[in-house]
Amino acid sequence: MINETYKAMLGGKSVIRTLSEYATARGTEIGYDNVFDYSLGNPSVPCPSSFTKAMIDMYETADPVALHGYSPSLGNPEACRTIAESLNRRFGMDYTAGHIFPTTGAAGALAHALRAVTKPGDEVLTFAPYFPEYHPYVEGAGARLTVVPADIESFQINFAAFEAALNPEVTVVLINTPNNPSGAVYSAETLDRLAGILRAKQAEYGHDIFLISDEPYREIVFDGGTQPYPAKFYDNTLTCYSWSKSLSLPGERIGYVAVNPRATDAELIVPMCGQISRGTGHNCPSSSMQLAVAKIIDETSDLSVYETNMNLLYDALTSIGFDVVRPGGTFYIFPKALEADANAFCMKAKEYDLILVPSDSFGVSGYFRMAYCIDTDKVKRSIPVLERFVREEYGL
Amino acid sequence: MINETYKAMLGGKSVIRTLSEYATARGTEIGYDNVFDYSLGNPSVPCPSSFTKAMIDMYETADPVALHGYSPSLGNPEACRTIAESLNRRFGMDYTAGHIFPTTGAAGALAHALRAVTKPGDEVLTFAPYFPEYHPYVEGAGARLTVVPADIESFQINFAAFEAALNPEVTVVLINTPNNPSGAVYSAETLDRLAGILRAKQAEYGHDIFLISDEPYREIVFDGGTQPYPAKFYDNTLTCYSWSKSLSLPGERIGYVAVNPRATDAELIVPMCGQISRGTGHNCPSSSMQLAVAKIIDETSDLSVYETNMNLLYDALTSIGFDVVRPGGTFYIFPKALEADANAFCMKAKEYDLILVPSDSFGVSGYFRMAYCIDTDKVKRSIPVLERFVREEYGL
Ligand SMILES: Cc1ncc(COP(=O)(O)O)c(C=O)c1O
Ligand SMILES: Cc1ncc(COP(=O)(O)O)c(C=O)c1O
Repeated sequence: MINETYKAMLGGKSVIRTLSEYATARGTEIGYDNVFDYSLGNPSVPCPSSFTKAMIDMYETADPVALHGYSPSLGNPEACRTIAESLNRRFGMDYTAGHIFPTTGAAGALAHALRAVTKPGDEVLTFAPYFPEYHPYVEGAGARLTVVPADIESFQINFAAFEAALNPEVTVVLINTPNNPSGAVYSAETLDRLAGILRAKQAEYGHDIFLISDEPYREIVFDGGTQPYPAKFYDNTLTCYSWSKSLSLPGERIGYVAVNPRATDAELIVPMCGQISRGTGHNCPSSSMQLAVAKIIDETSDLSVYETNMNLLYDALTSIGFDVVRPGGTFYIFPKALEADANAFCMKAKEYDLILVPSDSFGVSGYFRMAYCIDTDKVKRSIPVLERFVREEYGL
Repeated sequence: MINETYKAMLGGKSVIRTLSEYATARGTEIGYDNVFDYSLGNPSVPCPSSFTKAMIDMYETADPVALHGYSPSLGNPEACRTIAESLNRRFGMDYTAGHIFPTTGAAGALAHALRAVTKPGDEVLTFAPYFPEYHPYVEGAGARLTVVPADIESFQINFAAFEAALNPEVTVVLINTPNNPSGAVYSAETLDRLAGILRAKQAEYGHDIFLISDEPYREIVFDGGTQPYPAKFYDNTLTCYSWSKSLSLPGERIGYVAVNPRATDAELIVPMCGQISRGTGHNCPSSSMQLAVAKIIDETSDLSVYETNMNLLYDALTSIGFDVVRPGGTFYIFPKALEADANAFCMKAKEYDLILVPSDSFGVSGYFRMAYCIDTDKVKRSIPVLERFVREEYGL
């Protein structure tokens, strides 16, 4: 008998995916060039040629039996060591290979990290606006997700709401910085205050609270800035990373969990992820992909187009009159809609072939997300359309 | 707080992995050439050069943004169509792309298939001897695994024991043919009888019983034979396949679930797998790997060495006096040990640097498994050692 729970989920298609499919279909009608598709977070810049070269080189010269053989269940030790050393160099950490668990992207990392430090029924707190897939990740682990209302001034953390939401059933706080959808980069001050509260609550409740830090956009920070490293602020941190965005490899499914060596039971968590992976059918990510990312460990794609696009959009949106927080990173911007019902706003925009994602599924009402991982030329061409839409529909 | 269930699993290391690690360590002492390592099912022949060529060609010529972009959540439609057509051609089925769900190997396929057609607490029956990872796969889905005693005459199905084990809580029967560890290839007669019983029990219990057919060794059949296609015998069949063994790509994690179009709710099962994958953190397997296997869909590695090795070992074992069923496929053989305690038998063999896996974790006592996916030269060199071990320890 088919599983009724998963069957019931068939109705609940992701809003983002639905809009993206609409954009593709509309593109076959009017030419995709004429659809201003801001729906999907699929990187628009190619992976670096050094990645392609590293892969071709391995395929041409490595022994295929070794290259494509089963990876050890806790990951390729050489790849893990390279990842650990890069993090140590960049963020002053002291990871060893045994603190790194390679995964199938950030999704795989979060699935394993959540199972490792929750038990069924535990409460996981996250902050609006948040990535909607946190629901299946958290619920797949048997825990429940509670969303703390947003700090709509700056999209940092609404600490009053956070302190009100904390209770002894919370065993994980899940953050995402740089943030999808707001583009906010949590500051050192934010992270420091967050860590202080978590330490106090651990003492008060008499149990660990793990910080799971989802960082697929870590390398996409604007104005020459960098993302302060959350694990540096708080010992019980599991860092979930992905090369989906920084190397433009989302289809290849490669990332990791990094366990802070100062976390409780730090030495057990990677071996536990190995056990968890047996039940999720995950095993390791691709053996050759683990080696390839390790070979170009400190490189990224040319990410500069995202900053160019952000500046164009931010200037246009503010000059049109939108209320919008300037993103510090990612390839998203999250302006306030021009009416309370973000869905209605985005439906009207769709008539102009502007594909905007309403904010409701991100846990905030009245906003919309634009994913500007698209050609700069298209961003430029979209601006007059945006202006016309706003003028005609809202008289601005 | 770390999860106590997964923590408790840390003690229970796989016997196979432990022996394989011992063999590797022993190899650094005496040279791996001198360790007769029959522990692990890691293919010993390279992937076909056409696979390597297809990959290099894509890396050299395809647009990297498209090649490495997110795969649609139900898999690359072109790859799914190619897989469906190949199965239709080879086995007279009528799959469409929508019946195929690409996965991370057979492990991923089983994890999704099991979740799709069980609810927590359901009973899953499998037949001894069986692959020990069925425990985490089934328990990870929240179901429970019951093992039907072996047919030790031929390692087909012990139907008397099967009928005794069936009860209304059984919603899945999980088979593996060609079989790890016995090497048995289920005959058309076996599959026909199995299907007949399942149909009768579906009618009697008034609910579906799904057959999940785990077929990573489908292409490794000896004596010019082929594996009769289980889904052809029974409508409610989910076929779980992997290219790990047939293309020697276990580290690349690529396989699929194929849903029999005649199964109950056949059109829902692939979309349900898509929903399931959100919670397991699986998403799709590698986008480029989906394309590559589709490009060489009906090819395999040169699998002939496994038959050569099987014949050498089968002849040697029978002439030494072992009681052994001749394998019809795979790269395993499963002889009866020379004492009731298979563990003690394998420990003694280890003293001769013969690494044999005791049968207990496969659900049968008193046997051992040899994985002969190793060089034929090593197989030949191992035979006098096997003879000496048996003479010195058992006087045979
Ligand atoms: C915040 C956030 N977390 C996790 C993910 C999943 O990343 P991956 O594709 O590496 O699994 C995404 C993807 O868009 C994301 O935006
Ligand atoms: C019977 C059986 N099922 C499933 C698997 C898992 O296969 P994969 O590596 O493709 O996930 C194996 C691997 O050895 C196996 O022997």
